[in-house]
Amino acid sequence: MRKIKNLEYSDGKILLLDQTRLPLREEYIVTDDYERIAEAIEKLEIRGAPAIGLAAAFACALSLRNIEQNHESEFRKAVERLRKTRPTAVNLFWALDRMENKFRKCTEIENVYESLIEEAEQIFEEDRQMCERIAGNGLQLFSKVSRVLTHCNTGALVSGGGGTAFYIIQKAFESGLVDHVYADETRPLLQGSRLTAYELDKSGIPFSIITDSSAAFVMKYVGIDLIVVGADRIALNGDTANKIGTYNLAVLAKYHNVPFYIAAPSSTIDKNCFNGNSIDIEFRSGDEIRTINGHLVTRPDFNAYSPAFDITPNELISGIITEENLFKPPYKF
Amino acid sequence: MRKIKNLEYSDGKILLLDQTRLPLREEYIVTDDYERIAEAIEKLEIRGAPAIGLAAAFACALSLRNIEQNHESEFRKAVERLRKTRPTAVNLFWALDRMENKFRKCTEIENVYESLIEEAEQIFEEDRQMCERIAGNGLQLFSKVSRVLTHCNTGALVSGGGGTAFYIIQKAFESGLVDHVYADETRPLLQGSRLTAYELDKSGIPFSIITDSSAAFVMKYVGIDLIVVGADRIALNGDTANKIGTYNLAVLAKYHNVPFYIAAPSSTIDKNCFNGNSIDIEFRSGDEIRTINGHLVTRPDFNAYSPAFDITPNELISGIITEENLFKPPYKF
Repeated sequence: MRKIKNLEYSDGKILLLDQTRLPLREEYIVTDDYERIAEAIEKLEIRGAPAIGLAAAFACALSLRNIEQNHESEFRKAVERLRKTRPTAVNLFWALDRMENKFRKCTEIENVYESLIEEAEQIFEEDRQMCERIAGNGLQLFSKVSRVLTHCNTGALVSGGGGTAFYIIQKAFESGLVDHVYADETRPLLQGSRLTAYELDKSGIPFSIITDSSAAFVMKYVGIDLIVVGADRIALNGDTANKIGTYNLAVLAKYHNVPFYIAAPSSTIDKNCFNGNSIDIEFRSGDEIRTINGHLVTRPDFNAYSPAFDITPNELISGIITEENLFKPPYKF
Repeated sequence: MRKIKNLEYSDGKILLLDQTRLPLREEYIVTDDYERIAEAIEKLEIRGAPAIGLAAAFACALSLRNIEQNHESEFRKAVERLRKTRPTAVNLFWALDRMENKFRKCTEIENVYESLIEEAEQIFEEDRQMCERIAGNGLQLFSKVSRVLTHCNTGALVSGGGGTAFYIIQKAFESGLVDHVYADETRPLLQGSRLTAYELDKSGIPFSIITDSSAAFVMKYVGIDLIVVGADRIALNGDTANKIGTYNLAVLAKYHNVPFYIAAPSSTIDKNCFNGNSIDIEFRSGDEIRTINGHLVTRPDFNAYSPAFDITPNELISGIITEENLFKPPYKF
């Protein structure tokens, strides 16, 4: 039984926990409309690389619900729409490619919708198992009771299971190996102070929220034993795209000799991408900086520069944990 | 004529621009009550190390307005109250010590109030001249047209003149030596996105606000030629206490080979302090992280850890600019 239900399919509808409202309100979006799901991905109502892939998989299946004919054009339209939602997370494209492959293999027209839903449910179940294996592989990072720092949000909210980096921390805590977690608030959208704090609270793990710019202070004066974060795309040389601020943190970790790990499903590794230079970085509206939860904090005409992701070069990464292995540099996946 | 009027004395009253309302509203606090000024310092309605010293100087003078007798006990009460407002900025203690010295030298009881106001006005004027000299000394940092990054707020709002680090940038801009300024938003209280952006706008300097955790991205992908920030307290070895996030930035600057400078009046150098270890760090309420401009962004019961300052070790500082000189390591003031 999952403590947090972020995404669920039943009776021809998908249910999404609206992450923009957390932790103050737990509200759900219930829809059978792929366009609404595409919007939910764009508006970050559903977010986290694996969860985006899952939502998109169900969305393209749902595009064929109630469709009697011309399946192919409807399906292509949905896939193209979903491909445009967010550019950086590779899992989205991976899930859509897989749904397209499944679609091509469907010969009996009347069963296409059911077959696609089955495929999406299969991805969901594989995702759940993958989280278990990531957490299992990640446990070896903990040689003693540790203080851990993390960035952005990587728990049950981002996946079909317990999550990636967060789930490692949760499993380590359950094994008595985590003392305290420091969660970067993760401006501009506060995934740390809103979502990771919510997951930490649900898991009963002692934690403190810190501003992103307090990380060096905490490493130096409090002491951090390890940092583990997620990833949105990993190049073949280990360069990793993740939420803006990850690269900052990796530089600070290097200076303070704190081991810095990435945890992600192997579907995050982009086999077309030899290094970080070819990863497309999404820029978001300056409004995300000028406003906080819809409240204006500075003048609306002031210019703001808002990259949503950054690239951490492989030389700053101590190891990359997937469901397959704990990879150490030089990275060969 | 100053473009920004942050603090002014006239007719037995002090006028303070309420910095917690900027940039959306320009509202003034007008008072002759030292207790109200002490509160304004505590609530950050007036802030910035030199401005705190100035406000405190006027406040202890105002404690004697309308007092007919027992000057000494009233004055001591005010000084003790003001000493307790904020622990980190040394200028506060420096200004209060100077006002106490002046008080001791006042022999004619009927003139004590006027003499103290004159002393506060003298500090104000010295502060204005000191800003000019800091900016003059800082100009030598610019060997070409530069992109500059700064943290927190150090312009006209923090002093009796044009400010410290900001004023260097402003003077360099007026000399054609600044291309663009990147202003860290400076969580939790957003002095960058609210106050520095306000000063940059008033000065006509092209700028972009960034989240604190985008600094490494901007250094790497946009390119920053130099960083200059202020200080709240400088130890004799050059270790510098400044707004939380300064130490983060200094580590990132080192990694990216970006020169990192501190600018502050020499009164910020604490001669009783041999190194950063003996600087008292103020911790503020977790509410500053859990709320933004009074709006709750996460659950009020979630724990937050909120150091207000950090210490940047001297080895990360390329130079320290005061009104006296540009000091280079090893620091000897």
